[in-house]
Amino acid sequence: MRLSVVFKQVVTLLFFLSFSFLVPALYSFLYQDGLTEYFLFPLVFMGALYFLAFQIKIPKNDISVKEAILIVVLVWFLFPALSAMCYMETGAIKSFPDAYFESVSGFTTTGASILTNIEALPKSVLLWRSTTHWIGGLGFVVFSLSILPAIGAGGAQLIRFESSKAVEEKILPKVKEVAKAILIAYSFLTVAEVVLLKLAGMNLYEAVTHTFGTVATGGFSTKNASVGAFHSPLVETIIAVFMLLGASNLALYYRAFKKRSIRYFFSYPEVKSLFIIALIMTFFFTAVLYSEGYYSSLLQALRYAFFQVSTAISTTGFASTDYSNWPPVLLALIMILSLIGASSGSTAGGIKQFRFLVLGKTAYGELKKTVHPRLIYRVNLGGKPLEISTLNAIWAFVSIYFSLTVLFGLIISLSGYDLITSFSASIACITSLGPGLGKVGPAGNFAFFSSFDKLLLSVEMLLGRLEVFPILAVFIPYFWKD
Amino acid sequence: MRLSVVFKQVVTLLFFLSFSFLVPALYSFLYQDGLTEYFLFPLVFMGALYFLAFQIKIPKNDISVKEAILIVVLVWFLFPALSAMCYMETGAIKSFPDAYFESVSGFTTTGASILTNIEALPKSVLLWRSTTHWIGGLGFVVFSLSILPAIGAGGAQLIRFESSKAVEEKILPKVKEVAKAILIAYSFLTVAEVVLLKLAGMNLYEAVTHTFGTVATGGFSTKNASVGAFHSPLVETIIAVFMLLGASNLALYYRAFKKRSIRYFFSYPEVKSLFIIALIMTFFFTAVLYSEGYYSSLLQALRYAFFQVSTAISTTGFASTDYSNWPPVLLALIMILSLIGASSGSTAGGIKQFRFLVLGKTAYGELKKTVHPRLIYRVNLGGKPLEISTLNAIWAFVSIYFSLTVLFGLIISLSGYDLITSFSASIACITSLGPGLGKVGPAGNFAFFSSFDKLLLSVEMLLGRLEVFPILAVFIPYFWKD
Ligand SMILES: [K+]
Ligand SMILES: [K+]
Repeated sequence: MRLSVVFKQVVTLLFFLSFSFLVPALYSFLYQDGLTEYFLFPLVFMGALYFLAFQIKIPKNDISVKEAILIVVLVWFLFPALSAMCYMETGAIKSFPDAYFESVSGFTTTGASILTNIEALPKSVLLWRSTTHWIGGLGFVVFSLSILPAIGAGGAQLIRFESSKAVEEKILPKVKEVAKAILIAYSFLTVAEVVLLKLAGMNLYEAVTHTFGTVATGGFSTKNASVGAFHSPLVETIIAVFMLLGASNLALYYRAFKKRSIRYFFSYPEVKSLFIIALIMTFFFTAVLYSEGYYSSLLQALRYAFFQVSTAISTTGFASTDYSNWPPVLLALIMILSLIGASSGSTAGGIKQFRFLVLGKTAYGELKKTVHPRLIYRVNLGGKPLEISTLNAIWAFVSIYFSLTVLFGLIISLSGYDLITSFSASIACITSLGPGLGKVGPAGNFAFFSSFDKLLLSVEMLLGRLEVFPILAVFIPYFWKD
Repeated sequence: MRLSVVFKQVVTLLFFLSFSFLVPALYSFLYQDGLTEYFLFPLVFMGALYFLAFQIKIPKNDISVKEAILIVVLVWFLFPALSAMCYMETGAIKSFPDAYFESVSGFTTTGASILTNIEALPKSVLLWRSTTHWIGGLGFVVFSLSILPAIGAGGAQLIRFESSKAVEEKILPKVKEVAKAILIAYSFLTVAEVVLLKLAGMNLYEAVTHTFGTVATGGFSTKNASVGAFHSPLVETIIAVFMLLGASNLALYYRAFKKRSIRYFFSYPEVKSLFIIALIMTFFFTAVLYSEGYYSSLLQALRYAFFQVSTAISTTGFASTDYSNWPPVLLALIMILSLIGASSGSTAGGIKQFRFLVLGKTAYGELKKTVHPRLIYRVNLGGKPLEISTLNAIWAFVSIYFSLTVLFGLIISLSGYDLITSFSASIACITSLGPGLGKVGPAGNFAFFSSFDKLLLSVEMLLGRLEVFPILAVFIPYFWKD
């Protein structure tokens, strides 16, 4: 572990990330809301730090796995602190725990909020808030397609970019290769949605902020009533479709385009299962909502069902209506869908489809073994046989993920909140869904939590976003042995 | 699959099990409550059937794994039906779904009840109700130490009786060997508790029925207020201790006695972890109950804490107080403790300690692998290294167990019950805990469910009791291929 290398890389990354402050700075400058300097300050500050760090002489060669882990963890914990400072300086959010929570929630594309009246904030601040989604979503996809496969956490070796053997490759060149390819697909999705939302009647500001929230599967809106505020089936449908597109493996767009084949896109196991589950669940939600008399027409039921299923499984968290009073079975399914999550290599959170596909196939293999104890079965994914070590990594991921969800739920409930609130808050944070049930439901927010709970939930959001292992690894003594 | 062999074995087992009806028959005869004939009828009926089945000529050799699975599943589904008929004939319970639920709940040692006023029932019927626990608990332990290891379901090969290689052994002789050894330990625990409860002030009838509910970790009481009705710290302590003893591997008593070593008993991994968890949780429950002002003295808090922790982790379900109004974090822990469950080879339900010990060790191994992706780690339990196939069996068990819990919770919630009621009912049935939270809490019961839900929950109790795999296996086409 060369700490000088880690320090220099962290500062460099934070500096480059700080250029994202130019988005609200420019907006603020154009509309003269007097906040421009606050957005420029983090960039200047990081620039100065970068200049200092630049003086440190470090060897030119590649970083190690351990160094990569530490760099990633530090950047994800520190950049939100920079953003939190900005929220506080602009006067938009008063306390640090609140500002840090809102920032972490943004970068992790969780979309949980401590704001009680979003519309009261300056538009430049809300633009920054949505920008944190876009930046965080991009950062996560690059991380999950380059660093995660290299460390093999949770079976991530299965989601190698371009099926390259990431473990044997240099880390830094890999990150750059992935970043370039993903940036193209991500920008394409972004531009396409902005144009469509504009055509559907939104103004440019609304179109951009909601697009950032959609393609990053983040869920921050500039309206108190979220997407529901627009009262437009067309807007809802566009966003629902793009949530699913953002929840699909972004590397596929690039490959499908090169192959000129939409079929290639939909034949990818995780994308196929994502759309099949979304279809079945939309059908089920529609049936329940209509038969229980929540909506008088089948089309209305379908409208709200499709949006809610899409927002849940993509772990976006936008709301088109206050679903708190929906039948309990649907509320449970919303939380379960977010736990399952969408495709790996996407901006979505949750446990991810490929892990459930592998788990399901192994469980069935074990069931057959009950009948013939000496049976040897093989598990395939996308035609390729799985190694036993990958299998163990997946099992371990899922059990640690659930254990942490329960643990954080228990700690939250210690303050006396009801179990639905406590455990749905925990699920909403670790899966990066955003809103939960009960007091943290679509009409509620996270403002009432204590500062301690807010920092705790911030850590949980980061744990979920970095797929648990990298953060936990830093905290075991084994990590610091040489 | 030789169906004639299966049929003959099932009838034989049902006939021998029917001798348990002699317990309430004798009581009824002594106290002349006019119900004697109803208890004798099932025995006569099965005797006649046995006489018929006896005419079938079958080869003398051993049964196959598949035949064993089918026999076990059929006996567990059918004997409760016989008991249900008895409940209906005595007029104690009117409808079949109610009577079947109560019977399944008894034999699976779940202890969930559809009775709204237990004390209104004839004492002989309540004696039968408690007897179903004792018989079911014994049957389960024998099954889990002979059949389960042979089929290796859920990593059960780890809990071989006398560390014999069960897979290579004959099944029927194994069942007999285990049954003999277990019956001694089980009877010893039973007699010891009856004597102690008698000394603590209970009458013989109360002592026997509550002992049956304790050593089988069943939880049926003859009082509406359960164990709380006796208002005796001494009775509660005796029962709390025996719940933990019943939740320990019964094979250990035999071995510890042969070795003249109590240390041997407590050094067994699952027993050690069981008592450690019980200790820590008792401490935590006491601290929360006392600091939140639920009890004015520390000793009172300890009294209720110890009993509740013991009843939860042993999946017994006795209640010494109505804990519904306790802090949410404790309610969540009660359900979690029952999911974890106690030692294998005991009468307790839940996922079992050894599976969590293995999972925890593997998860930590995977965490270390994050730091060094090429690391090879080994998982040991009780000093013995685990095979990878055992590991997969355990992972698969846990994921299927959780999936079923969620699935049944969802189906129950379809009727519109709140999520706490629906999911705690599902947990309480699959883990064989008995009472849950909300409407199925310690002061509630399962009477309000529809007949469909009652039958559904009966199936869930059986799934949980037979450790899921044997029942599911019968329902896959692969089982019926030759
Ligand atoms: K989100
Ligand atoms: K029980």
